Amino acid sequence: MMKILVINGPNLNLTGERETGHYGTDSLDTINARITAEAEKIGVQVEFYQSNHEGGIIDRLHAARPAANGGIDGVLINAGAYTHYSYAIRDAISAIKLPTVEIHMSNIHAREAFRHESVITPVCVGQICGFGWYSYILGLHAAIDEVNKKK
Amino acid sequence: MMKILVINGPNLNLTGERETGHYGTDSLDTINARITAEAEKIGVQVEFYQSNHEGGIIDRLHAARPAANGGIDGVLINAGAYTHYSYAIRDAISAIKLPTVEIHMSNIHAREAFRHESVITPVCVGQICGFGWYSYILGLHAAIDEVNKKK
Amino acid sequence: MMKILVINGPNLNLTGERETGHYGTDSLDTINARITAEAEKIGVQVEFYQSNHEGGIIDRLHAARPAANGGIDGVLINAGAYTHYSYAIRDAISAIKLPTVEIHMSNIHAREAFRHESVITPVCVGQICGFGWYSYILGLHAAIDEVNKKK
Amino acid sequence: MMKILVINGPNLNLTGERETGHYGTDSLDTINARITAEAEKIGVQVEFYQSNHEGGIIDRLHAARPAANGGIDGVLINAGAYTHYSYAIRDAISAIKLPTVEIHMSNIHAREAFRHESVITPVCVGQICGFGWYSYILGLHAAIDEVNKKK
Amino acid sequence: MMKILVINGPNLNLTGERETGHYGTDSLDTINARITAEAEKIGVQVEFYQSNHEGGIIDRLHAARPAANGGIDGVLINAGAYTHYSYAIRDAISAIKLPTVEIHMSNIHAREAFRHESVITPVCVGQICGFGWYSYILGLHAAIDEVNKKK
Amino acid sequence: MMKILVINGPNLNLTGERETGHYGTDSLDTINARITAEAEKIGVQVEFYQSNHEGGIIDRLHAARPAANGGIDGVLINAGAYTHYSYAIRDAISAIKLPTVEIHMSNIHAREAFRHESVITPVCVGQICGFGWYSYILGLHAAIDEVNKKK
Amino acid sequence: MMKILVINGPNLNLTGERETGHYGTDSLDTINARITAEAEKIGVQVEFYQSNHEGGIIDRLHAARPAANGGIDGVLINAGAYTHYSYAIRDAISAIKLPTVEIHMSNIHAREAFRHESVITPVCVGQICGFGWYSYILGLHAAIDEVNKKK
Amino acid sequence: MMKILVINGPNLNLTGERETGHYGTDSLDTINARITAEAEKIGVQVEFYQSNHEGGIIDRLHAARPAANGGIDGVLINAGAYTHYSYAIRDAISAIKLPTVEIHMSNIHAREAFRHESVITPVCVGQICGFGWYSYILGLHAAIDEVNKKK
Amino acid sequence: MMKILVINGPNLNLTGERETGHYGTDSLDTINARITAEAEKIGVQVEFYQSNHEGGIIDRLHAARPAANGGIDGVLINAGAYTHYSYAIRDAISAIKLPTVEIHMSNIHAREAFRHESVITPVCVGQICGFGWYSYILGLHAAIDEVNKKK
Amino acid sequence: MMKILVINGPNLNLTGERETGHYGTDSLDTINARITAEAEKIGVQVEFYQSNHEGGIIDRLHAARPAANGGIDGVLINAGAYTHYSYAIRDAISAIKLPTVEIHMSNIHAREAFRHESVITPVCVGQICGFGWYSYILGLHAAIDEVNKKK
Amino acid sequence: MMKILVINGPNLNLTGERETGHYGTDSLDTINARITAEAEKIGVQVEFYQSNHEGGIIDRLHAARPAANGGIDGVLINAGAYTHYSYAIRDAISAIKLPTVEIHMSNIHAREAFRHESVITPVCVGQICGFGWYSYILGLHAAIDEVNKKK
Amino acid sequence: MMKILVINGPNLNLTGERETGHYGTDSLDTINARITAEAEKIGVQVEFYQSNHEGGIIDRLHAARPAANGGIDGVLINAGAYTHYSYAIRDAISAIKLPTVEIHMSNIHAREAFRHESVITPVCVGQICGFGWYSYILGLHAAIDEVNKKK
Repeated sequence: MMKILVINGPNLNLTGERETGHYGTDSLDTINARITAEAEKIGVQVEFYQSNHEGGIIDRLHAARPAANGGIDGVLINAGAYTHYSYAIRDAISAIKLPTVEIHMSNIHAREAFRHESVITPVCVGQICGFGWYSYILGLHAAIDEVNKKK
Repeated sequence: MMKILVINGPNLNLTGERETGHYGTDSLDTINARITAEAEKIGVQVEFYQSNHEGGIIDRLHAARPAANGGIDGVLINAGAYTHYSYAIRDAISAIKLPTVEIHMSNIHAREAFRHESVITPVCVGQICGFGWYSYILGLHAAIDEVNKKK
Repeated sequence: MMKILVINGPNLNLTGERETGHYGTDSLDTINARITAEAEKIGVQVEFYQSNHEGGIIDRLHAARPAANGGIDGVLINAGAYTHYSYAIRDAISAIKLPTVEIHMSNIHAREAFRHESVITPVCVGQICGFGWYSYILGLHAAIDEVNKKK
Repeated sequence: MMKILVINGPNLNLTGERETGHYGTDSLDTINARITAEAEKIGVQVEFYQSNHEGGIIDRLHAARPAANGGIDGVLINAGAYTHYSYAIRDAISAIKLPTVEIHMSNIHAREAFRHESVITPVCVGQICGFGWYSYILGLHAAIDEVNKKK
Repeated sequence: MMKILVINGPNLNLTGERETGHYGTDSLDTINARITAEAEKIGVQVEFYQSNHEGGIIDRLHAARPAANGGIDGVLINAGAYTHYSYAIRDAISAIKLPTVEIHMSNIHAREAFRHESVITPVCVGQICGFGWYSYILGLHAAIDEVNKKK
Repeated sequence: MMKILVINGPNLNLTGERETGHYGTDSLDTINARITAEAEKIGVQVEFYQSNHEGGIIDRLHAARPAANGGIDGVLINAGAYTHYSYAIRDAISAIKLPTVEIHMSNIHAREAFRHESVITPVCVGQICGFGWYSYILGLHAAIDEVNKKK
Repeated sequence: MMKILVINGPNLNLTGERETGHYGTDSLDTINARITAEAEKIGVQVEFYQSNHEGGIIDRLHAARPAANGGIDGVLINAGAYTHYSYAIRDAISAIKLPTVEIHMSNIHAREAFRHESVITPVCVGQICGFGWYSYILGLHAAIDEVNKKK
Repeated sequence: MMKILVINGPNLNLTGERETGHYGTDSLDTINARITAEAEKIGVQVEFYQSNHEGGIIDRLHAARPAANGGIDGVLINAGAYTHYSYAIRDAISAIKLPTVEIHMSNIHAREAFRHESVITPVCVGQICGFGWYSYILGLHAAIDEVNKKK
Repeated sequence: MMKILVINGPNLNLTGERETGHYGTDSLDTINARITAEAEKIGVQVEFYQSNHEGGIIDRLHAARPAANGGIDGVLINAGAYTHYSYAIRDAISAIKLPTVEIHMSNIHAREAFRHESVITPVCVGQICGFGWYSYILGLHAAIDEVNKKK
Repeated sequence: MMKILVINGPNLNLTGERETGHYGTDSLDTINARITAEAEKIGVQVEFYQSNHEGGIIDRLHAARPAANGGIDGVLINAGAYTHYSYAIRDAISAIKLPTVEIHMSNIHAREAFRHESVITPVCVGQICGFGWYSYILGLHAAIDEVNKKK
Repeated sequence: MMKILVINGPNLNLTGERETGHYGTDSLDTINARITAEAEKIGVQVEFYQSNHEGGIIDRLHAARPAANGGIDGVLINAGAYTHYSYAIRDAISAIKLPTVEIHMSNIHAREAFRHESVITPVCVGQICGFGWYSYILGLHAAIDEVNKKK
Repeated sequence: MMKILVINGPNLNLTGERETGHYGTDSLDTINARITAEAEKIGVQVEFYQSNHEGGIIDRLHAARPAANGGIDGVLINAGAYTHYSYAIRDAISAIKLPTVEIHMSNIHAREAFRHESVITPVCVGQICGFGWYSYILGLHAAIDEVNKKK
């Protein structure tokens, strides 16, 4: 059974509370439940990881890799503000050799200038942005599709 | 029953024949059939409109609007080359007040310079690009979700 | 009896519904009725044409020309978003040899950057913008005056 | 029997009336009759299409393509003002895979700055400009020659 | 009773030992004692948190928020070197909706170029820098004042 | 009987031998024979002049002019490398008041930088480039046509 | 007995698996075993610390300092991607007053632009780069030597 | 008796026929007759040479030189378009060591950009331009004066 | 018997008279006699050509080519001032496919700026400059050596 | 038995006396003795050469080369100030084809601007800088390692 | 009997071994033997000096001068890498007042940027480059000739 | 008794013979005799050293230093062309810790561009230039003064 790892970066644990204009009022748990439900419908497993720690995200990515028998087939990542400066996360994504889809709830290109550049895009399959929590659902399907293509 | 209007702009009727390196060998009918099948599974109607006419696309967008009893709940648009200069289509999307999702099969940011900028992104909900024909499936879900959110 | 052709370009059929901050809540029919009333007071005829098609606008301009016995003495045009890139409409205005007045309801120079340039101004008698629906009334007088000058 | 499609873009239907300094006083029908006469002499068929509609031109190009059993062997195009901004027509020319010759009656390089660049040249065989209506006759021969070379 | 959270970022636990030219020889405990004394005089509680972990600081900020019953009314933060690149801490400050005062002991604008920019200032009430340990005392007053204003 | 003067500039006498990638393997005599045959079909005389001498080309142009009873009705010129710096040939073309057509076998805009600019284009009727030896046949027709137009 | 702390930053735990063109196929354990063997020959203790956490690295550096009875005499650090933006690690190295040697297996100056600058070099004794895993052995000796010099 | 050589470069043989706006309607013979009349009044001989050949002008200049018993005391030259690029004529003027006056009928500095620079001026006594045929008369006087100065 | 063609460009016929500081006082005939004598010693034939005519030089180069049974094995050229602008001579050298050595009597790099660039160097074997008439003797040997290498 | 040649450039003979802040107080003899001792421990021979003469250094490098039976397996070079401008030493290193390690006692990047660039780095294996006399010991090991790798 | 001093600068003693793509496989001795043979044929003595020492080359140049009864009549110099920065050798050449010819085997203008400029050219008679070892033979003749001219 | 070392760099041994416009006709011996006479008047000893070898000058400077019991109190140096690029001599001057005065006979700032910069000035007490041989006398006084100041 295919398993997709969903990683959320800093402050995304406060989703639903913060900048609701950009992110909506659903909590991350609610969103995760929806992802799980969607995954179950498809017959795919999902595993969630949220951390405000750059190193934590890197650790989790490493643990997911086939070489570590991570049991993960693809990754969905919303790296939060680390998107814009974490070359360490970039190196981790590149290292684990799993198809990785970058998502954002808000349209990062329509916000502050520092959010316009993503340092992780070059090592991801593609980018989906602007659909609120549903960006995750779309990203889940994109990741599954990408995993299936690689089989 | 929700109805999503799928608009394809100029030259996309030749999908499957042209620039197959960028767009794949599936025809637009094949892709549309996949969109329909996906929509049926969800219990959503889809209606397709392809035109090489900028004005035709604008008319169709106008006819879709609630104020015209257009019977359309959301729009999925791949505006083809008009993406890069049609401020008239941009104004139309903005005018009709229907959630509109911009999609591209190829990664428009990785092709000729004139394709890097989209003049319609600022008035769309979001953008999905780079997943081949599957970008439409993801976009369909994005549009449906956006419609549902607005209910 | 003098006849003025009033042309409205893309999305102006939705006037009253869209961007009411810029364009007000009067419909195009209401505005046209005001133009007609004003024209009657002066003893001038007006004819209206709206299209979202760049080619349609060109066709109508062509039909208006004296060489086609168009019966039109002057033109009032709000080319909508085509104002900013339609060199084809520019060529049409230039071709028909009728005094043509460019109008905009909003102040195009005070909005998004892409609206600052008009490619049709060089072939029009002049430009009036920023007075809401009253721009049409002013434009009507300007067109009549220009026609009278040419007699 | 070889068949060449001759496409004229916006405002070229007014040839003979407009900017006679640049285009002469012959009407497009007169020019087309000359093209036909020339074609008959050579034993080649020609088919004419004029439209002020960008989309109309794209549709006609698509219909001409071998994959649509368009029955057309080569294309002669004077895209009028669309020459300078229609990436959609450019994509259409590129898509249909027929030898296409770009012509202009006037010397586009000796007029307004916006006419100096052609966005379609990169996907055409070559360019002929500056010979008034005779540019079409020359272009016809160039297109026929190009078709013969490809046999 | 009002409670102010005092957060110190990376390396500030070594205050008194390191770069005594910039930071003086008082330890962080000594400084904290002075802050406590000052707070007691005013009748305000203070709580201290120091971490070298970007994620730890974010976690503590999150825990302080009213939505988590954090019991904190305002925040005083010296983010150390994270001041200059942690968009993640910036997002956390923005998320928790507590008045936050940025302080630095040294004048960051008068040191190495990389210390001149603070990425957290835009989401703080204000910045106080250059007064050695007394910056904390000034910041405490500023935070209290800000909390009182919000009541 | 109309007579067209075909002028070839420096090194074109070696056509067929040199840079066959750009110019093909047909000799100038072969090309001239094709031009003659084409002219005979039309009932037009052609006269050939090739010179590697800038002054020779100017003399020949002068001798061709009506004021000298030159017996020449139009000129077809491929000025070779003089295209790029001979303002004297430019002045001669301008002086003789005979319709002059500039042709090039290769696409001069796609070669070394010094070949991109033609100093004679502004005084020619038009330019034909990129069709190999067939550029001459097209140019012959263009010149004849131009002569006929002037009658 | 002298003790050297060997710190490896983010993703270096995957050495031997990732970007083997730059880093070789030996695992970090293999490399550490070589460092240990080398240290034993010299009669020096080594302690290893690898973390993907910026804060973890700072904590470990702090704990190593004499003021904390850290029992460490010198530091060897390969900060991985943090090399390029972690001013917090820079401040930690500067704070602990232990001789610190910066090493890199690859030549960081010959890779992507973002890897060319090291923000930690100014607070290290020196830099050794380009010798693969042997950079660690050289760095060990450099650190030991530096410690001995300070005695 | 002093003898002045008057040299006219390319296309000047057509004076009176060409660009009469710049050069007037007098033929070169008429102008030469006026120069001769003026010379006779002063008691000086003139000799005329016109060529369209850069090499011919150089040859004539060479023949004029004292070392060749040229019998010429000074030179008046209107080098036509060669003025702007013939470093070979420049070298010839420099070589013959005769006082040489550069003249132009039109004001070369007020025409096309390419006519603004003269490459022969640095080796001439001076330049006279803009006085129509009278430039020759002025130049004759200038040349005579220069010859007299050298005696 | 090997034959080398020695070409001299404009004004070099005045060698010995002009700019004797740069070129010495020997006439071209004297220099040629020396070249002949040197050639005879080596058992090589030389043939001389001097012209002030750009076209004459091109003609002579063409006549030399093997394809014209020119009987010439290598070329020595001092193109005089044409060196700096004659793209036509450059094309001729390139066309004839004979080893060509560029020589100058003076050091062209130590004179006026316009003499610093040679447009013919890219199509020559090499360059010898600065040795007065002896540059020809050296160039003769260089050309012979080059011809022998090609055997 | 492997032999490493240690070359020291200008002024390094005064090591221990000069700029002791950068280089320490040990004399070059002392340093060399340490290198010898280290080499003996490893079972490797070292040979020393110091010169203030650029040419002397080049001679010594040449003599070391295998083609001269130089008996040297690798080179350790501190070229002193010649590092920054001696293209002749660069050419020598490149010519001898022996693995060469560049070392500096001070951190050349942290001193005067003219010391930041090394013209010999591109032809060396790598660079070690900043460790005082111990840079030599490290470089010795690096050179030995490099020689062993090449076996 | 005339004597020419042939000076070779740094690394040229390794000719035949190093960068054989640029310099060929003949050793300097072989080349010198050819120079000697050539000189003997002419009845001229040659003396060879090669040094890697800038000062050695200067001393040798000084010793060669007439004022020192150096017995040398002319100099042939290939200064190797010193060509590009040795203003001291330039001053020496200028000081000794012996005709000096600069030669290079390779075309120095077609290699690394630092080799494009020669600082000694302005004080040499001329430069010969690009003819491999034959550049020396040509240079020998050039030097002899220059000496003869000065007699 | 104070002793001043007078060092002359490359080509200064030829003073009196070379570039007498810049340096005069007195030989270095004559100048040295004048320096000696001046020194005797003041009661100071002078010692002279001239070399064309960069390394030789460095060696002499080293030998002069107190640490070598050089017996020298101050240095007067005219480094000739090495002035402009010898960072090695600069380092030597800096190393020996003797007051050093830089002199030049000519005004180096008023000659060729390459002579405008002195790389040794920053480590000298000062520079005197432009006074011919008298620069040495002035420099002697300056050096003596400097030595006296240090006592």
